Amino acid sequence: MTTFVVVGGDAAGMSAASKAKREDSDLEVVVFEKGQWVSYGACGLPYYIKGEIQSLEDLVSVTPEEFREERDIDLRTGHEIVAIDPDENTVTAEHDGSKTVQSYDQLLIATGSESVVPPIDGTALEGVHTLGSMSDGKELREYVARARDGGTLQQPDRGPACRYLEDCAGPVGIVGGGYIGVEMAEALAANGFEVNLFQRGDRVLKGFSDATSDAVADHLREQDVVVHLGADVQTLSGDERVEAVVTDDEQIDVEMVLLGTGVRPRTALAEDAGIELGETGAIETDSYRETSVPDVYAAGDCAESTHVVTGEPAYVPLALTANRHGRAIGQTVTGRPTEGGKIAGTAAVKAFDIEAARTGMLDHEEARAAGFDPVSETVTAKSRAGYYPEGGTVTITLIADRETGRVLGASLVSEYGEGAVHRSHAIVGALTEAATVSDLENYDLAYAPPFNTTWDPVLVAAKVLSGKLR
Amino acid sequence: MTTFVVVGGDAAGMSAASKAKREDSDLEVVVFEKGQWVSYGACGLPYYIKGEIQSLEDLVSVTPEEFREERDIDLRTGHEIVAIDPDENTVTAEHDGSKTVQSYDQLLIATGSESVVPPIDGTALEGVHTLGSMSDGKELREYVARARDGGTLQQPDRGPACRYLEDCAGPVGIVGGGYIGVEMAEALAANGFEVNLFQRGDRVLKGFSDATSDAVADHLREQDVVVHLGADVQTLSGDERVEAVVTDDEQIDVEMVLLGTGVRPRTALAEDAGIELGETGAIETDSYRETSVPDVYAAGDCAESTHVVTGEPAYVPLALTANRHGRAIGQTVTGRPTEGGKIAGTAAVKAFDIEAARTGMLDHEEARAAGFDPVSETVTAKSRAGYYPEGGTVTITLIADRETGRVLGASLVSEYGEGAVHRSHAIVGALTEAATVSDLENYDLAYAPPFNTTWDPVLVAAKVLSGKLR
Repeated sequence: MTTFVVVGGDAAGMSAASKAKREDSDLEVVVFEKGQWVSYGACGLPYYIKGEIQSLEDLVSVTPEEFREERDIDLRTGHEIVAIDPDENTVTAEHDGSKTVQSYDQLLIATGSESVVPPIDGTALEGVHTLGSMSDGKELREYVARARDGGTLQQPDRGPACRYLEDCAGPVGIVGGGYIGVEMAEALAANGFEVNLFQRGDRVLKGFSDATSDAVADHLREQDVVVHLGADVQTLSGDERVEAVVTDDEQIDVEMVLLGTGVRPRTALAEDAGIELGETGAIETDSYRETSVPDVYAAGDCAESTHVVTGEPAYVPLALTANRHGRAIGQTVTGRPTEGGKIAGTAAVKAFDIEAARTGMLDHEEARAAGFDPVSETVTAKSRAGYYPEGGTVTITLIADRETGRVLGASLVSEYGEGAVHRSHAIVGALTEAATVSDLENYDLAYAPPFNTTWDPVLVAAKVLSGKLR
Repeated sequence: MTTFVVVGGDAAGMSAASKAKREDSDLEVVVFEKGQWVSYGACGLPYYIKGEIQSLEDLVSVTPEEFREERDIDLRTGHEIVAIDPDENTVTAEHDGSKTVQSYDQLLIATGSESVVPPIDGTALEGVHTLGSMSDGKELREYVARARDGGTLQQPDRGPACRYLEDCAGPVGIVGGGYIGVEMAEALAANGFEVNLFQRGDRVLKGFSDATSDAVADHLREQDVVVHLGADVQTLSGDERVEAVVTDDEQIDVEMVLLGTGVRPRTALAEDAGIELGETGAIETDSYRETSVPDVYAAGDCAESTHVVTGEPAYVPLALTANRHGRAIGQTVTGRPTEGGKIAGTAAVKAFDIEAARTGMLDHEEARAAGFDPVSETVTAKSRAGYYPEGGTVTITLIADRETGRVLGASLVSEYGEGAVHRSHAIVGALTEAATVSDLENYDLAYAPPFNTTWDPVLVAAKVLSGKLR
């Protein structure tokens, strides 16, 4: 019997396991997951903490029992793989203090990523959280619930954000203005917390365009989030429990801190087995996601992908890539070699009442380093016909290469419901197909007054940038 | 001085005139418009009649005065062109009973389309309307207002649709279940009318997929619109005023009838001048929208376009094409030859609380005639993460060629606000770039729980169809 072993039971791992078993029911599929949760939607944690989702179980798309009973996958939760031996084709699992050795014909490393804790004092204090796992989510939800109930925590004077609850909760700090930071600002403010968001650089969501970052920061402030830009956090101070965030020029009292300072790939296991890492620090793979060691694959947040614009390796750990690459590997190991496709670094985020998306390459310096001559343009256009009773605006930054006209990237922001995110889909298509701005300008996009103007904002952006490229 | 003459002052004509003048301020640009309205959003008329837009003027994007004063265009409203002489390079205009001759260096025919009146008895009765022009819209709005006010019209017993108004208005008939029919069903039902929609074929919106048509018909019925499918209207009966719609098997009393039975290109002027029509019956052009007569262009609802999937001429009179081709001609006649791009027959429609879009080629027979071997699949998927508090479903029909895997078309339907229309943008990109289903499946589309599932419904549809193509 042929055995496909998977290390890690989240998106990439379970997608690969499920697909492989569906393709070849004779295949033995064994998944080792060190925790108890598998196949969960970590992206939903901010909404769980906010209180819009009632149970952690709701974030689980398929339960361990379903994987075992309905999909016939040998899923072993609570089993940590501590070693891979590529010469012997085995992995060693540790469970309840005892070790077992499992042999494999093909192996997938899907160990995911872990939250980066910045190298500053005080990160080990009580009340300092990260948000990388289901148990992180559970702790934060409990904290929010306790604070809302006026429980054991201190209750300082009401901050300006205290408009949702009668009994307002004290100031909190979020270090990092990326997706997690922005989504958690909403989750915490909605629960009455006075939120302080600390961002080291001069704008939030630095992977987006300046225009998007500015729109989001302005909106956060409208929602009474205190946005500290250019704030270099030096220390988290406190006795046992965190009491203040100390930056290079101020000290802000807080009773909780969330570190949203990014993630890094979990690669120790692969490195120990002699598997090569790429320049990004994540596991290097070919286009079939096979590592430097034959029959060993890597996918999801621990592995590199290939960027659709540059053709170069990139590390952008996101859910769709993990699912897509996992599924492709499931096909590959069962005899139908499948490339899981490239990535465009596309991402979406909701921040209170606005939505934003980004795709491709936005940074001019990065684009120049990749051999392009970047030109960009930002337009703000009506999201629906001007005479239509509903509507707002969409602001789009579009970037292209001057010589070829090729679309390189875009960043979009609109009121929530006005379509910045779904409109980014059109640009992903253009990027992926290496289309030019002038191609994009001629896309025959759907139009009706309740949905857009005759020239959808995407076309308006292309038209304006096209003019600049002449 | 060089003179660019435009016949017809709506989307195509005014786009061309504006663009040409902007490119070359020395150019003399003369536009002849037989009516008084120019550059208006006819697509907004249903919402004006519904009462969501207060004034007809709101539908005008640029006023005649602005064209004349700000854009320096010699716009002559109330001037009908009655002849083109391509040998002499002149047009003859009629105004207040007198004729003038204008010479041109380049000419654009943008005479638009007119409503088709079906060849049945009774279409000339009072109370029988079409919706092609601003004055049609004005009449219908006045009719709705009178009926709402319980004015001069009969007030039969309240129909089932009478839930919006205290004083309900009588039954009305809509002949034709296309965009206009569906949008006007909403506009009239929202004003308390009992609406009877008569569709000759077995489904509404026949340019969309069966799944979309069924969803829209079901929803119309939920909204108390009486949908008569397979209803061959034989006569509109009545004395002076229309009193009933008579089909092959029933007679339905009505006090007003709207004919939404399509449009045909206005080509008489071009034909008289010896300009060739294509097989579709609209004016034939090359890819620069130049007709069979040199220096004479045609664009908008009177002209053919080129279909992006078949590469063949097609007649799909829609607003974006008119704008796009008009603009391209404005560049071409000022020395920068510009192809205005192909069309995908993309269209969007809102019907009460649902939205739908279609693009490309959906009809299997048509696809086979074009040399494809069509395969299609319809999927229904969640529009947002299952655990997210908001959300609905998107139903997507995706069609591709079996041999090459090329995406040929799609039809999408969702609750209003759940993104069927903006999601169609991604598929337009794929069509235009001649991408395969498997390319589309690997598009790195934006994901976050408030906007979609990890695999956006577009990707789900591609995944399922891809499986069928193996």
